[in-house]
Amino acid sequence: MIKAIGFSYFLFVSLNTFSQPIDESAIDQIFDLELSNGRSYEMLYDLSVNVGQRLSGSPGAEAGVRWSYNAMKQFDFDSVWLQPVMVPHWVRGEKEIGRIISKRAGTLPVNICALGGSVGTGPSGISAPVIEVKNFEELKSLGIKNVQGKIVFFNRPFDPTKINTFDGYSGAVDQRGIGASEGAKYGAVAVIVRSMGSNLEDYPHTGGMRYAANSPKIPAMAISTRHAELLSKTLSDDKDLQFYLESHCETLADAPSFNVIGEIKGTEFPEEIIVVGGHLDSWDLGQGAHDDGTGCVQSIEVLRIFKAMSYKPKRTIRAVMFMNEENGLRGGIKYAELAAKNKEKHIVAIESDRGGFTPRGFTMTASDEVRQKIQSWKPLLEPYGLTDFSQEGGGADIGPLSRQGVPVLEFLPDSQRYFNYHHTAEDTIDKVDKRELELGSASMAALVYLIDKYGLK
Amino acid sequence: MIKAIGFSYFLFVSLNTFSQPIDESAIDQIFDLELSNGRSYEMLYDLSVNVGQRLSGSPGAEAGVRWSYNAMKQFDFDSVWLQPVMVPHWVRGEKEIGRIISKRAGTLPVNICALGGSVGTGPSGISAPVIEVKNFEELKSLGIKNVQGKIVFFNRPFDPTKINTFDGYSGAVDQRGIGASEGAKYGAVAVIVRSMGSNLEDYPHTGGMRYAANSPKIPAMAISTRHAELLSKTLSDDKDLQFYLESHCETLADAPSFNVIGEIKGTEFPEEIIVVGGHLDSWDLGQGAHDDGTGCVQSIEVLRIFKAMSYKPKRTIRAVMFMNEENGLRGGIKYAELAAKNKEKHIVAIESDRGGFTPRGFTMTASDEVRQKIQSWKPLLEPYGLTDFSQEGGGADIGPLSRQGVPVLEFLPDSQRYFNYHHTAEDTIDKVDKRELELGSASMAALVYLIDKYGLK
Repeated sequence: MIKAIGFSYFLFVSLNTFSQPIDESAIDQIFDLELSNGRSYEMLYDLSVNVGQRLSGSPGAEAGVRWSYNAMKQFDFDSVWLQPVMVPHWVRGEKEIGRIISKRAGTLPVNICALGGSVGTGPSGISAPVIEVKNFEELKSLGIKNVQGKIVFFNRPFDPTKINTFDGYSGAVDQRGIGASEGAKYGAVAVIVRSMGSNLEDYPHTGGMRYAANSPKIPAMAISTRHAELLSKTLSDDKDLQFYLESHCETLADAPSFNVIGEIKGTEFPEEIIVVGGHLDSWDLGQGAHDDGTGCVQSIEVLRIFKAMSYKPKRTIRAVMFMNEENGLRGGIKYAELAAKNKEKHIVAIESDRGGFTPRGFTMTASDEVRQKIQSWKPLLEPYGLTDFSQEGGGADIGPLSRQGVPVLEFLPDSQRYFNYHHTAEDTIDKVDKRELELGSASMAALVYLIDKYGLK
Repeated sequence: MIKAIGFSYFLFVSLNTFSQPIDESAIDQIFDLELSNGRSYEMLYDLSVNVGQRLSGSPGAEAGVRWSYNAMKQFDFDSVWLQPVMVPHWVRGEKEIGRIISKRAGTLPVNICALGGSVGTGPSGISAPVIEVKNFEELKSLGIKNVQGKIVFFNRPFDPTKINTFDGYSGAVDQRGIGASEGAKYGAVAVIVRSMGSNLEDYPHTGGMRYAANSPKIPAMAISTRHAELLSKTLSDDKDLQFYLESHCETLADAPSFNVIGEIKGTEFPEEIIVVGGHLDSWDLGQGAHDDGTGCVQSIEVLRIFKAMSYKPKRTIRAVMFMNEENGLRGGIKYAELAAKNKEKHIVAIESDRGGFTPRGFTMTASDEVRQKIQSWKPLLEPYGLTDFSQEGGGADIGPLSRQGVPVLEFLPDSQRYFNYHHTAEDTIDKVDKRELELGSASMAALVYLIDKYGLK
């Protein structure tokens, strides 16, 4: 009987938080507009192909700033501006070489790339024997006597049985993030990390790593998953093989850059701000199409759709292209810092940073009250494939806002293909399906429409 | 209050139709097995690359029959056999030419292909002016005086605002299916049909067409969506352009072929049969990877998973690779005919024929009782992304079983990319994502497990 009461109470609540026919029709219009005359794909093509990679501090990132500014100016949003922020400036350098040298198997070139933030090897490279481990406990139990002077090879794969590939990623990414300093504790001269990919592939995945304070800085490189298998197999036949590693990456002085912001002013509560955002920077190997050109164009598109349907939001809707999510989060931190300083009132922030795939729902980190209000709109969003509103989480760039108490959400697309491309040379426009991308833009616009109309109190 | 009673009744029903922890664990095991050691992708690679296209009556179809038989033999199912069936035998012929010849725009080659079942143009081709229409009403209103001697160009696109792309397809496919005979009514000499694709692309989509009884048989060709736009634009500038069409396709005498069937005998109710199936034939332009190599390997995989987990089904589980879904449905008809003749008791049939994309649910055509029972299992399937059990429908091959009263279901994957590849040279293995394919196999196995365990009464 308790359940039955709960159910009728829920019905009562949900019937009171939206106006079914009007909202259905508005959301229908949003999706129709986007699927028939959307600009998301055209924008993402331009950003991916004509701007390309946008690593923080690089000329590509500068071009991305100009591109975003001009795109939003051209759509005639109420204001478009740049928010200065200093960013780390890491450069890969020209040549990257990885080679297995085995008396049994011969010399085998393998596909490697430096992890972002790594030091280089110096011009003469590093040659050393390899010790393979699956985790830090194994490394610890091997100790200095087995690790000293060697290259540590972290080879724990994604758990393929995780349905959400982000869970596979979470279970493996510590190797990339802190593997170098863990190896250095025991005297390793470099680390090679199995790429953070769901499948066996030929290309390496880069990504951020950081050195612990006071830890010796040793080079950290990713190896393609297929070549991780090859290295492991070759090692099992020849424990004494040597690995040659060469990389010329280095960290330069911090560089000036910008968050790029556009907004439509609210008509009724202009001081209440709704942020939609993605990050403008990308890794340097591909075009940053899924990660995160997608989030940038989808955020711009939310505002453009509102203008196209002549919808005047009650609240201020702000599209933010954050700089430096990949290797520093300086843009997100700066944005939140200025929001606090300027006493801006953010009622919600929504990020898209999981790729331009078909929509499944939204994650959220918010109070129970906010969560329930958003979940009460489920009947309006389910017809568009948005069924999952149960997971915790918001995007990295809006984490600093979340820590100020702002409710945050992240657009949740299907995860199956994301880690095929993530941080690789394969993250290019041809991996993005036009309709899937558009459905994401419209999903974000639909949610923003509801939040704008009803607020979150 | 009525609602509240309904809800508690539903709770009561659902709590009694499955054993939560045991079934959760079995379904978990199914997905784990498939995602860590599945054979779906390896099978589909082999079928797509080493067998390739499998148009009914072709050597490729014969090779597909052998491949399926051997695959199931190798997995040591209880029985594997061939079920003879005569199939239509249409051949494309070598050369297909489409050309716009305009005094204003010059000669523009366009990408066309004959529709399956069409007659050819004869060796000297057809040259004629073109009249563009969007639908049969428009054609009728133009009448003989405007159509006689011309090529009718059907150019109604998919409605891009349909969220499910199959709804876009349904709204356009009449042009392909019966356009030729509709055009012939008014004296057309041939028809060109805008390809059944969601997007602007360069390659044409073939597919089945049929002539009305007593209608003159005129050639029917598909044109790529991008070239449909070009033809329309060129026509708007030059109503008098000529179109040159050449195709050497023809229909030969019916050919012998087979459905390929494998089964695991039930331990408790061996006379109760659960069918899982796909169609083995494909169009001739690509490799039939998504359509419907996917359905074949997923069906085989259901039985293989059960063997791998040493699960002995109570009921007989039968994988059926139907022949000739694309241009005749002879395999599906023959299977149902023999099932009736042999008084076999089919308790359900499940088809996969919507591509190897990420799972969303199952459609069904069944009694309310069966529907409710299947829907009561939703809590067990939702963690795997299977949330949609609301739509009507089963696969084409099991339509004849449905008409005998057998409950039928179809696996429902995400639809966004299906019509990028459907019936084209692009339907190749590289368009299939390994994890997405595997999730579909496991989804089907999970549903079959529940049906086998609990029945549908």
